[in-house]
Amino acid sequence: MKKISVHLKERSYDILVGSGLLDQAGKILRRLHIGDCAYIVTNARLRNSHGAILATSLARRRLKAVWMQVPDTEKSKSFAQAARITNDITRRCRLQRVFIIAFGGGVVGDLAGFVAAVYRRGSPFVQIPTTLLAQVDSSIGGKTAVDLTSGKNLAGVFHQPKLVISDVQLLATLDRRQVIAGLAEVVKYAVIADGVLFRFLEKNYKRILAKDPAALEFIVSRSAAIKAKIVSKDERELKFIRTTLNFGHTFGHAIEAALGYRGYNHGEAVALGMLLAVDISVRLGLVSGTIAKRVEALIAALGLPVRIRGVPLSKILKAQSHDKKFTGKKNRFVLLDGLGSTIIREGIPLGLLRQVLAARLAQS
Amino acid sequence: MKKISVHLKERSYDILVGSGLLDQAGKILRRLHIGDCAYIVTNARLRNSHGAILATSLARRRLKAVWMQVPDTEKSKSFAQAARITNDITRRCRLQRVFIIAFGGGVVGDLAGFVAAVYRRGSPFVQIPTTLLAQVDSSIGGKTAVDLTSGKNLAGVFHQPKLVISDVQLLATLDRRQVIAGLAEVVKYAVIADGVLFRFLEKNYKRILAKDPAALEFIVSRSAAIKAKIVSKDERELKFIRTTLNFGHTFGHAIEAALGYRGYNHGEAVALGMLLAVDISVRLGLVSGTIAKRVEALIAALGLPVRIRGVPLSKILKAQSHDKKFTGKKNRFVLLDGLGSTIIREGIPLGLLRQVLAARLAQS
Repeated sequence: MKKISVHLKERSYDILVGSGLLDQAGKILRRLHIGDCAYIVTNARLRNSHGAILATSLARRRLKAVWMQVPDTEKSKSFAQAARITNDITRRCRLQRVFIIAFGGGVVGDLAGFVAAVYRRGSPFVQIPTTLLAQVDSSIGGKTAVDLTSGKNLAGVFHQPKLVISDVQLLATLDRRQVIAGLAEVVKYAVIADGVLFRFLEKNYKRILAKDPAALEFIVSRSAAIKAKIVSKDERELKFIRTTLNFGHTFGHAIEAALGYRGYNHGEAVALGMLLAVDISVRLGLVSGTIAKRVEALIAALGLPVRIRGVPLSKILKAQSHDKKFTGKKNRFVLLDGLGSTIIREGIPLGLLRQVLAARLAQS
Repeated sequence: MKKISVHLKERSYDILVGSGLLDQAGKILRRLHIGDCAYIVTNARLRNSHGAILATSLARRRLKAVWMQVPDTEKSKSFAQAARITNDITRRCRLQRVFIIAFGGGVVGDLAGFVAAVYRRGSPFVQIPTTLLAQVDSSIGGKTAVDLTSGKNLAGVFHQPKLVISDVQLLATLDRRQVIAGLAEVVKYAVIADGVLFRFLEKNYKRILAKDPAALEFIVSRSAAIKAKIVSKDERELKFIRTTLNFGHTFGHAIEAALGYRGYNHGEAVALGMLLAVDISVRLGLVSGTIAKRVEALIAALGLPVRIRGVPLSKILKAQSHDKKFTGKKNRFVLLDGLGSTIIREGIPLGLLRQVLAARLAQS
């Protein structure tokens, strides 16, 4: 087991990464002294597949478990669900010290985190992420969110968890496409901050795709350590440090939005966004073509897309111009100026964006 | 005009108290540099009576005003309203730097503050409180809230405003009962922390009830200064300092809840709660009967109730035992050990609570 710390003064917490940690959850959580009633937000599939292990582990340490299932879809990230869950907590954990567990992927983490952030103006919560994407990214850093009809993640609060428990054994039941989607974010960490991780991915991608536990523990803990370090320096994304985590996400979000969040999943769209960011970096002379080729080769080897299909260039550009990150201002991109090193550039000419997009469109 | 500062490092802000400040809102807000689009949450009555002054003042400084009216009732403090308003902001202030103005009493302040707290994970907001209660209490300190079906204020976030503008001229259109309700909180500040304010109230209650602007400015600024000082020391009520503001609220809330939030308004219930807290203090030998008599005489002179009517003792005790402030623990009361000095005591015997309640019940 690896332990990684997020340093945020009185909001500091640990991320535990290991194989079989779910079975020890009761012991670990009892030691935290955050409450006696564990209110667990999850979905039906996860409760069926792994709920018994968690329930038994909590019961061994006399922690009461209260289960709340939400549909396994982005639609669950709503004010209506938050209202339903907060009401349910007061009803079912009445007169008890309650803490909230997000037991699921990004949807459950964002929603349960939001509920914890607002319930009694801030209640303790713990992330037990069950997807690779959630283990390396969304469970760390305290961003919680619900969606508005006008856009995703437009309402939320920064509310740090008390602990993150990442059990790589939970990844065994994920389908291949979900694992690959999570790998896009792992590639991101490697490209922006960690040459060692990049070379590990180049050499071991087959082991990773075969879900070798040791390989998964290595990439999850390495990724979590990078995110923890960045969040520790810039919790609320005010200093252009946390901003570097948006590498690949400017065009990634635009591609997702242009396709109405159908077609590519988040990881696939981010993979394409990273390639576009590298392409821009090459054209601006910031990074060599050799590095660009290595990034593309790794992304392809992991089974992620390297060509954009099914959406016209104009729609991507339009979606990108509405990006919530630069409302009313110049565009802003996280670019590469070396493997493991980023630079933020604003006001990239539209002509250049068109060129790199056109070059990445699949010839159909 | 008086300026009072709340000291909370990067979240510090000023409270401006004066007569006719609404007319200067545009100039004051422009200097804050918090945005160009003022999204104003209010109710129909206030927009009709005072909206034109605010609109003109904003327009003079080229601040765009976008108005959102909510019903003037506690029911507006809901997740559903928060969802409606956040969606409306994205639609009507698209591509603009938006800040939110809470232009109203406690309901508007709690709701608009909650919206500001969650919109894009925290947006700037300004309180322009229009009731005495909001000017001396709810607009200061960053508590935002919506209600759950299971209880009031059970969901919320701490989110400090960027500024509070308290224009005592706005109090001129309040009905007498609303002013008197606000005076209960002013009495609270005087009793727990400010002998000078207490003597001012004793001498000047007639001027205050006649809404003399200078007298109002004195009591509002004096009250705001006490709250500002307490919030500066204990923003999130973690150190038993902000707790002292609950003086009179333990039984106050219980009386409100026992009556189903009909009958007494918040100020009237708090007046009764303060008298009960003083009664307990006297019985415990913490404070003299002379002080108790002065507190009761002042409360009566202001037109606030000194006898409990229309609700049986047993219902009040039951509601009090469900107080969210001491879920699963011993009861806790803020008591008086001198005029302007408080002490917190836990585990007050039920027998004593019964005695003081019984003595305060009106003989009908």
